[in-house]
Amino acid sequence: MFVLRSILSAAFVFAAVSLVSGQPQAVDTMILGGTVVTMDGGMRVIEDGGIAVDKGRIVYVDTQKAVRAAYVSSNKIDATGKVIIPGLINTHTHIPMTVFRGVADDLDLQEWLTKYIFPAEAKNVNEEMVRIGTRLGLAELIRGGTTTYCDMYYFEDVIAEETAKAGVRGVLGETLIDFPAPDNKTWADAMAYADRFAKKWKGHDLVVPAIAPHAPYTVSEEHLKATRELADKHGVPLVIHLAEAQSEVDFVRENKNMRPVEYVSKIGLLDGPTIAAHVIKANDADLDILKKSNVGIAHNPQSNMKLAAGVAPVPSMLAKSMNVGLGTDGPASNNDLSLWEEMDTAAKLHKVFSGDPKVVSAQQAFAMATIGGARALHIAARTGSLEEGKAADIVIVGLGSLHQTPLYNIYSHLVYATKSSDVETVIINGRIVMLDRRLLTLDEAAVKRDANALSKKIVESLKD
Amino acid sequence: MFVLRSILSAAFVFAAVSLVSGQPQAVDTMILGGTVVTMDGGMRVIEDGGIAVDKGRIVYVDTQKAVRAAYVSSNKIDATGKVIIPGLINTHTHIPMTVFRGVADDLDLQEWLTKYIFPAEAKNVNEEMVRIGTRLGLAELIRGGTTTYCDMYYFEDVIAEETAKAGVRGVLGETLIDFPAPDNKTWADAMAYADRFAKKWKGHDLVVPAIAPHAPYTVSEEHLKATRELADKHGVPLVIHLAEAQSEVDFVRENKNMRPVEYVSKIGLLDGPTIAAHVIKANDADLDILKKSNVGIAHNPQSNMKLAAGVAPVPSMLAKSMNVGLGTDGPASNNDLSLWEEMDTAAKLHKVFSGDPKVVSAQQAFAMATIGGARALHIAARTGSLEEGKAADIVIVGLGSLHQTPLYNIYSHLVYATKSSDVETVIINGRIVMLDRRLLTLDEAAVKRDANALSKKIVESLKD
Repeated sequence: MFVLRSILSAAFVFAAVSLVSGQPQAVDTMILGGTVVTMDGGMRVIEDGGIAVDKGRIVYVDTQKAVRAAYVSSNKIDATGKVIIPGLINTHTHIPMTVFRGVADDLDLQEWLTKYIFPAEAKNVNEEMVRIGTRLGLAELIRGGTTTYCDMYYFEDVIAEETAKAGVRGVLGETLIDFPAPDNKTWADAMAYADRFAKKWKGHDLVVPAIAPHAPYTVSEEHLKATRELADKHGVPLVIHLAEAQSEVDFVRENKNMRPVEYVSKIGLLDGPTIAAHVIKANDADLDILKKSNVGIAHNPQSNMKLAAGVAPVPSMLAKSMNVGLGTDGPASNNDLSLWEEMDTAAKLHKVFSGDPKVVSAQQAFAMATIGGARALHIAARTGSLEEGKAADIVIVGLGSLHQTPLYNIYSHLVYATKSSDVETVIINGRIVMLDRRLLTLDEAAVKRDANALSKKIVESLKD
Repeated sequence: MFVLRSILSAAFVFAAVSLVSGQPQAVDTMILGGTVVTMDGGMRVIEDGGIAVDKGRIVYVDTQKAVRAAYVSSNKIDATGKVIIPGLINTHTHIPMTVFRGVADDLDLQEWLTKYIFPAEAKNVNEEMVRIGTRLGLAELIRGGTTTYCDMYYFEDVIAEETAKAGVRGVLGETLIDFPAPDNKTWADAMAYADRFAKKWKGHDLVVPAIAPHAPYTVSEEHLKATRELADKHGVPLVIHLAEAQSEVDFVRENKNMRPVEYVSKIGLLDGPTIAAHVIKANDADLDILKKSNVGIAHNPQSNMKLAAGVAPVPSMLAKSMNVGLGTDGPASNNDLSLWEEMDTAAKLHKVFSGDPKVVSAQQAFAMATIGGARALHIAARTGSLEEGKAADIVIVGLGSLHQTPLYNIYSHLVYATKSSDVETVIINGRIVMLDRRLLTLDEAAVKRDANALSKKIVESLKD
């Protein structure tokens, strides 16, 4: 945190100096024109705006005129007529599972898991599958304007390698579970892997390593405590599925005589940066516990709907100013990685479920997909809004499509009308990873070819 | 009906002759290769399929090999690696309102209507607005693979003109309401307009005129009865909003001491082809009434969610084999015209609302968007599936996008992964209206320019 604040201050000083000196400073990149939706503390929206980017960071956000007066660059991106937003943040997924997209649907959770997902994983999850699935997912994330994602899976080191190579930001957690996993057959091996993984990636520009115990019903109390210790040892966040299903509530009630949130809090699991996915079966007291522990919430409306898991109490969470982000969950239960659809669905789902058309406004939904997600992942000092000193995670979205015509309100437009296909250019940590819909860090044809070839093997593996 | 059956038989005979004679017959168009999802009685899915189209109708659907053996054409469309589906059917919208997309959101229904929509309509709805909004909506419908839509608005004759010109199929109803409307200030004028309108368009290849009393709470009993008479006089369907809101239930209870469905049935409104939009506040007895009267249901999941209207009992409707289609409702309450999102949302909404992940399967959702919609609109003899004798309403959808990679199950893919942006070519009544994403019957740039210019006037009109 200290290091980050220093960099932040340095950037502010740099920006200030350039403004005072009157001499335009040279920067790596300038994005000029267009509507800048900052998602900063004042929810500033700047018409005919501009952003100066240098050394991976945002050094200035203002009107085009002000940016041009203070900076020069040989690399100018024209965003006239478009909207410039913070990169979207997907707070929960299992990215290699993108190769399982649509392998089984419309089933009871138990049947889906035990007859399809677990066998498909047991027979197919290895380093190669993880690499292919991750690349496929990363390409889809970038195409949809997502610049940061939070993952939980196996072979997470491979995921981190691919993520760093593609230039995407990730909070990546190696899954720890009381069963033999595809990468580590014993708890000790898995903990050792997670330990090496956290040590290796700690301090990386893009990858924040995390420790990811699967859930309160799949990891023992003793083991859960050990995962918190490991996370604390490295100063990294802990990621867990929490209060997702009634069966989990029943299990924890039977074994601990507590509610899931109560239980993990009591054993100290929340005593440090934590990201909890789902949080559906949580009452008001549970929310207060989570709020007090500053737990980030990953809300996955489409996955929760498709698996009939339930509806998370998001309006209450927002009313308590909890840090709520949006996630897609794995594409085996969604079946895509579009944050645009999650925003749209979140806004609509909570309206109909609460009977109040005012809850989860377009602006709140867009905040969950950006700054709220950054806060939920404990990286809001680094990303989630367009502000001086933060990383340059910037997305340029076209406004010219038929389904976006005409335009009255920018938040309404972003949430209720805009689609992944409207995303044009994506910058992460100052690096352009998609320019005018062309992926620059991944070979899209090869990504698809590999995924299609692998899917044939997966179909074969499920035949016996 | 008689005429249609004759044509159908003629087409079958034609197809049969060509197969028997051994001499390939010349047809207008052949679509070859790709996966044909027919949505016929046997839910046939044909790999490496083909379709022969002649004089606006489908004359043969089979494997590519069989089609090539029986027919020849100088106009061949290669669909290799793609999926060929029946054109999608949007069973409920108010298409000119596309120019009001996003003008006001996240409000109580009454506030939304009285402070924004009604003033916006009072100040802006005229022939020109209807023409501009209809063109905008038609272009978006085509881009999303929708070939048929059901509309209720004012100046419906203008809508019909534009629809016919763009080559889109429509069941178009002039709205009748007990208030001065933008096109007709009195009930008598409105009825006379609807009478002329029905007479003018009856028998048109693409446009089915309809009589559209607004709702049980906005049209008196006497007037409702008159609309049924008018529909019967012309042999056209009647379209109505029904059982949409609790306020409607309360109103009808207070005035008639009945439930809305009970009431309209008792007064004979359902004694002829009827299309009812929404049908949220309906109990089991109501559904039985609607089923007995063969009323088509237009289910609008996204609009119902956004306005917090409630969740229609769709699993019960499907269990009763009722004719249920999907609709977007007007883009002022959605905010788009994508049937792909309605399918995805319908499948997911009913799972979470019922707590059963098996209800509304991908195949059922896709059926609602195609053959179910055709049945709901009482035009299933003409469209809704890819079958010999039906109109050639055919859509070719790409399968090559990242978010569609890989592919395991075609229905899952169509419902949970495919987007409007994947639609490539659209044929309606044998006429190609979009080829490789280029609109052929509408000038897209002009459509957008006109809508954008009009939106500026709308903003001005709302300022006082």
